[in-house]
Amino acid sequence: MSKATCWLGVDLGGTKMLAALFNDKFKLLAERKEKTGGHEGAKAVIGRLQQLIAETLAEAGLPAKQLGGIGLGVPGPVNVQTGAVISAPNLGWHNLPLQKILERSCHSPVRVYNDVDAGTYGEFRFGVGEQAHCVVGLFPGTGIGGGCIYEGKIFSGQEHSCFEVGHMQAVPDGRLCGCGRHGCLEAHASRLAIAADCAAAAYRGQAPALLELTGTDLRDVKSRTLAKAIAAGDSAVEDIVRRAARQLGVAAAGIVNLIAPDIIVLGGGLVEALEKLYLEEVREGIAQHAMPLLVNRVKVRAAQLGDHASVLGAAALVAEARRKP
Amino acid sequence: MSKATCWLGVDLGGTKMLAALFNDKFKLLAERKEKTGGHEGAKAVIGRLQQLIAETLAEAGLPAKQLGGIGLGVPGPVNVQTGAVISAPNLGWHNLPLQKILERSCHSPVRVYNDVDAGTYGEFRFGVGEQAHCVVGLFPGTGIGGGCIYEGKIFSGQEHSCFEVGHMQAVPDGRLCGCGRHGCLEAHASRLAIAADCAAAAYRGQAPALLELTGTDLRDVKSRTLAKAIAAGDSAVEDIVRRAARQLGVAAAGIVNLIAPDIIVLGGGLVEALEKLYLEEVREGIAQHAMPLLVNRVKVRAAQLGDHASVLGAAALVAEARRKP
Repeated sequence: MSKATCWLGVDLGGTKMLAALFNDKFKLLAERKEKTGGHEGAKAVIGRLQQLIAETLAEAGLPAKQLGGIGLGVPGPVNVQTGAVISAPNLGWHNLPLQKILERSCHSPVRVYNDVDAGTYGEFRFGVGEQAHCVVGLFPGTGIGGGCIYEGKIFSGQEHSCFEVGHMQAVPDGRLCGCGRHGCLEAHASRLAIAADCAAAAYRGQAPALLELTGTDLRDVKSRTLAKAIAAGDSAVEDIVRRAARQLGVAAAGIVNLIAPDIIVLGGGLVEALEKLYLEEVREGIAQHAMPLLVNRVKVRAAQLGDHASVLGAAALVAEARRKP
Repeated sequence: MSKATCWLGVDLGGTKMLAALFNDKFKLLAERKEKTGGHEGAKAVIGRLQQLIAETLAEAGLPAKQLGGIGLGVPGPVNVQTGAVISAPNLGWHNLPLQKILERSCHSPVRVYNDVDAGTYGEFRFGVGEQAHCVVGLFPGTGIGGGCIYEGKIFSGQEHSCFEVGHMQAVPDGRLCGCGRHGCLEAHASRLAIAADCAAAAYRGQAPALLELTGTDLRDVKSRTLAKAIAAGDSAVEDIVRRAARQLGVAAAGIVNLIAPDIIVLGGGLVEALEKLYLEEVREGIAQHAMPLLVNRVKVRAAQLGDHASVLGAAALVAEARRKP
């Protein structure tokens, strides 16, 4: 394989998709963005995805044979043996053989990863991960995603990607979760759960700044709106977010007790908008609930790479897979 | 190294220690048992341990040069780099450099492992573990121990053994744990927690069979006593044990969501005495709290090797370490 081989990373999100082309040293050569439009169905999304990939390669003026491979991050569990997407609720996908479909159309090796696994790997290699022995990524958003890089590789099940942090039990017999069970971390500490509580507080008159910013429709309660409402003095909003962040911290403590990671990376929109609050509460949750022996050994850090974590991670992962097959 | 190399495994427990000598195919050649007597201090215990090792070798008539190494399982977290015992509350040990001490006196390579890690490895290699991709061991006893074998090796922290399942949070603001925090799984679901609840039930007249068998001193409530009381019709005792077993199952579900193991091995005295009940409740806890995708893929099994799991595992681990240094 020539030294000039390039790698393409794609982050296929619920709202947008981002493709980025990197050289062999993972310097960015070109990138393109596109709306996902999942409501139009898998065929339309895959068509746009193929076009986005082609455009990104064209932008860099790269001949097809110089592309070493394509790595994709998708929002849901994947079959690590076949590269099929097992389920991606935000896209309405179930058991979609994405790797096969794209390999056929793109004439290039393709690997499919869970997006949080890819993002955590990105941070591990190029961000705050310091290439540590064990790095855990926690990404609270609409749901709560998790990923783990152990001894340089994604920690995964025999067949499935794993680290479904959002469905660890946070509260016995707690709130109804999207998965149909009760008390999952995601049902209590995701942005959606926070938004629901904040909209109720706004309705009750406890969050006047938020009420003015958004009204009571929880779809309008974005991460940055929460940050603005807190800055404007809505103590109820701060309360609700701190409580959710602390619950994430308690779950993180459980993870510390179990697998003793060296670094926990917090990422996603909520953490970007409210970094200080999240770092404080997660550290405190760990301090109170992890074994003392382990508390001081785990570093809690905010992600550094933002939107580029997953594309960098996916590109680097496919490069690794091609180098050491 | 000659084919006739032998390996010694030692399980250093809070009450007794067991040493077993195996040939290169892990056939048992000799074994000896001794009381631990931890109250007499580390020096006395180590003296007895050295004697036990010497006697076991003598029993097999083995010349020292044929011993490939000694593997020990100890009841507490260990430093995986140095083989020091970080803490073993049942022995009153803190930061004891056990590997160094024994290597000096035994003139043989020594490796120190957490006992549940060693036991889980034993089951992985020689018991119910089927040499699977990922095997988790859960051993409820006085505390609740956990271990994980991932891709053929003990899953561990950079410096420490890990998988401290007993200190995952089971109940927010729950019962006081031995570690000083509240709501740990161990504080709710260990044999000690069960014994405390059962002794109270006996005192209240809700567990007449248990009251006759043991009185109200929770030190007398052993695993087999619980099984006898349940068999004799103490429904309150069954209730208490089922509740604890279910809490273990909920924690197991969290582990399933996180790391998607292929097999969960349940072991220890409680499971030996009440195997059916434990298998039922842990399976049900997983069915109700793990992601549906993962529920049917994880097997829940009772350990097969009993007391031999840790000695076999420790011997096989030191053999592996010597073969691939």
